[in-house]
Amino acid sequence: MQVVSKGEQTFEIKEVPDGSIVSPSGFKAAGLHAGLRYNKKDLGAIVSEVPASCAAVYTMSHFQAAPLKVTQASIKAENLIQAVVVNSACANACTGEKGLQDAYQMRKLLAEHLETKQEYVAVSSTGVIGEFLKMDKIEAGINQLVFGNEKADADSFQEAILTTDLVMKKCCFTAEIGGKTVTIGGAAKGSGMIHPNMATMLGFLTTDANISSDVLQKALSTVIPTSFNQITVDGDTSTNDTVLVLANGYAENEELTLEHPDYPVFVELLSVACESLAKQIAKDGEGATKLIEVNVKGCKTEEEARIISKQIVGSNLVKTAMYGSDANWGRIITAIGQTNTDVNPGSVDIAIGPITMLKNSEPQLFSEDDAIAYLNKDYIQVHVDLHNGNESGTAWGCDLSYDYVKINASYRT
Amino acid sequence: MQVVSKGEQTFEIKEVPDGSIVSPSGFKAAGLHAGLRYNKKDLGAIVSEVPASCAAVYTMSHFQAAPLKVTQASIKAENLIQAVVVNSACANACTGEKGLQDAYQMRKLLAEHLETKQEYVAVSSTGVIGEFLKMDKIEAGINQLVFGNEKADADSFQEAILTTDLVMKKCCFTAEIGGKTVTIGGAAKGSGMIHPNMATMLGFLTTDANISSDVLQKALSTVIPTSFNQITVDGDTSTNDTVLVLANGYAENEELTLEHPDYPVFVELLSVACESLAKQIAKDGEGATKLIEVNVKGCKTEEEARIISKQIVGSNLVKTAMYGSDANWGRIITAIGQTNTDVNPGSVDIAIGPITMLKNSEPQLFSEDDAIAYLNKDYIQVHVDLHNGNESGTAWGCDLSYDYVKINASYRT
Repeated sequence: MQVVSKGEQTFEIKEVPDGSIVSPSGFKAAGLHAGLRYNKKDLGAIVSEVPASCAAVYTMSHFQAAPLKVTQASIKAENLIQAVVVNSACANACTGEKGLQDAYQMRKLLAEHLETKQEYVAVSSTGVIGEFLKMDKIEAGINQLVFGNEKADADSFQEAILTTDLVMKKCCFTAEIGGKTVTIGGAAKGSGMIHPNMATMLGFLTTDANISSDVLQKALSTVIPTSFNQITVDGDTSTNDTVLVLANGYAENEELTLEHPDYPVFVELLSVACESLAKQIAKDGEGATKLIEVNVKGCKTEEEARIISKQIVGSNLVKTAMYGSDANWGRIITAIGQTNTDVNPGSVDIAIGPITMLKNSEPQLFSEDDAIAYLNKDYIQVHVDLHNGNESGTAWGCDLSYDYVKINASYRT
Repeated sequence: MQVVSKGEQTFEIKEVPDGSIVSPSGFKAAGLHAGLRYNKKDLGAIVSEVPASCAAVYTMSHFQAAPLKVTQASIKAENLIQAVVVNSACANACTGEKGLQDAYQMRKLLAEHLETKQEYVAVSSTGVIGEFLKMDKIEAGINQLVFGNEKADADSFQEAILTTDLVMKKCCFTAEIGGKTVTIGGAAKGSGMIHPNMATMLGFLTTDANISSDVLQKALSTVIPTSFNQITVDGDTSTNDTVLVLANGYAENEELTLEHPDYPVFVELLSVACESLAKQIAKDGEGATKLIEVNVKGCKTEEEARIISKQIVGSNLVKTAMYGSDANWGRIITAIGQTNTDVNPGSVDIAIGPITMLKNSEPQLFSEDDAIAYLNKDYIQVHVDLHNGNESGTAWGCDLSYDYVKINASYRT
């Protein structure tokens, strides 16, 4: 349980063990092996009993993949989404006109299978860029989807959306909102090509909150910059990055408006869920052996703190030093130094875990043994204080190992 | 020999086999093992017979190392430099007031050894950040420097400035300028922490051209954006990056002004030398097995073409695909997509070597066998046409291998 204080408001956010995207009332999921890959599940969907309010953010890449265009067209129609269908193995990106037709066909197939409107269906794909979807397998797979709200159903969906991921990413939290218990569940995938400029690879959140699409979009846009946009695995932004939130109102709370006294509670609930998924993605980065968290404080603006923390956690040299448990704080200062931010080079503190290595920009004596012992853990925190203001920011990433190279030297083949 | 045409002017630039920084008249060099490292040479210097015109560019990092401050102070005094002393093993960066005093002391020691003014001496260091120079060894080493103008003397200097580099980087070219043969020689180091925002790790160029410091600085600033600033090994900009050019006038050409008809010849000569050193650095990137060259054309501005080419060659995913000889052009499109540039997503061509993989943003069929055969070479060219303008740009980098991780997971220890 987390107790959160915002101004005069204090509220609780509870984690639901084993919770998932099917924990909020009125949501079901499914996933199966459609044959896009050799043997793992590769096609899944989430469905709400009724068309739900929705909010989404997409990649900032110039090359948005076809499914993103279809999802945007669906949302534009009535601002309601009832279901999302996702495949792995093929990103359906850079596939021209045929790829767009395939994505529309995928939408149509799930709409017919669920007997709902095409415009209520969102579409998502992840995998290799520049190849076409095997539409015969997609069609057969969609027609076999059987939805349920058991843990196994959520697991099937979570597994179906993975690519080089080693573990499923999921979360579930609740909060009291307007006297009702509101639940939010999430599922995500992504372990390479992760350096979101706006969203991560794929993140899906379901909630039974009663909230309009417009207000939900505001809430999502508030939490994205400090959650999904603050993780990096390899500095590359995918063509398919999407985060989609569905809210079906089944919690029967009084409708959340921007002025509602419990709106901040919902934003915090959404934030906790997004941050949880983001950290799970960073921890499962391709070849990762450690989750790295970088906290930067003492900045003039929050944005600068976020830029600097992300620059540090994204540096190949920092990442390889972390892999080798080498307390090479010079690489941290190098990463800070190259950001286009307001930094006073004479007043920087750096600590790795509890060990201060630089104080007021002067090197400090420290025990190498203590440093190695700390760096051998699988969750490393780096603390930077720039003594230049009152704002702070955090970013998450992972180390860079032999396995990262191995995975990516032969991903396509 | 290269024949260069600029407007109505046509001129020749000749490479001097086995040429180096001591090839231009009036320059000598030295290098030796001062004991900063276990057994390789680690201290060197270049000296001109007379104080020379000079030009320099430095890292854009917030944390400029102490020697850079001392070099800038020297240049500011009379705008003349006669000698530069360089050590490897220790960067003398982030070393506070003591580090600055050490760099000034290093300057003083070489000035005394050469019996010249302190303000005629530039200082440069490369190696680990945050450690202090071993001044007793620096002093003993400087006092033992014996200068010469043989190939062996240049080699000693070139070896002394290396860190994780595997090979020495050097070049020598000549051109006819005002009826005289002007020679330019260069030496460089750098194989990690290379993503210069203004200069590379360390580059030293000597020339016997007769040119003032002001005009030399203009010429250097003209060629840096298309040479040293267009290479990347790992996306990190060092605290110590410096490129320094010395021109002692011994070629006795009519003084080069901005209006001199042969000024463009000198700029091209400098450009060819800088590009040669830059490519040698990229090819010897930490763990590199291949030199990657990315040519981008069809852009609205040269700057956009340079940004896009550098983004592609800097992408970990592109670099690992190149290492694995995997023709994964989707990663190239991903890198283009995330740049903040004017790109028309519907009109992109991509070729790897002679093999076109994307035409007008539509995937093309190609032979995987041909692609692998090409990618197994050690010099890979990627060609991108954005069909969006008439400007072009090139960047150089290397692949990302297991050895990059190995080298950087344990550099400090």
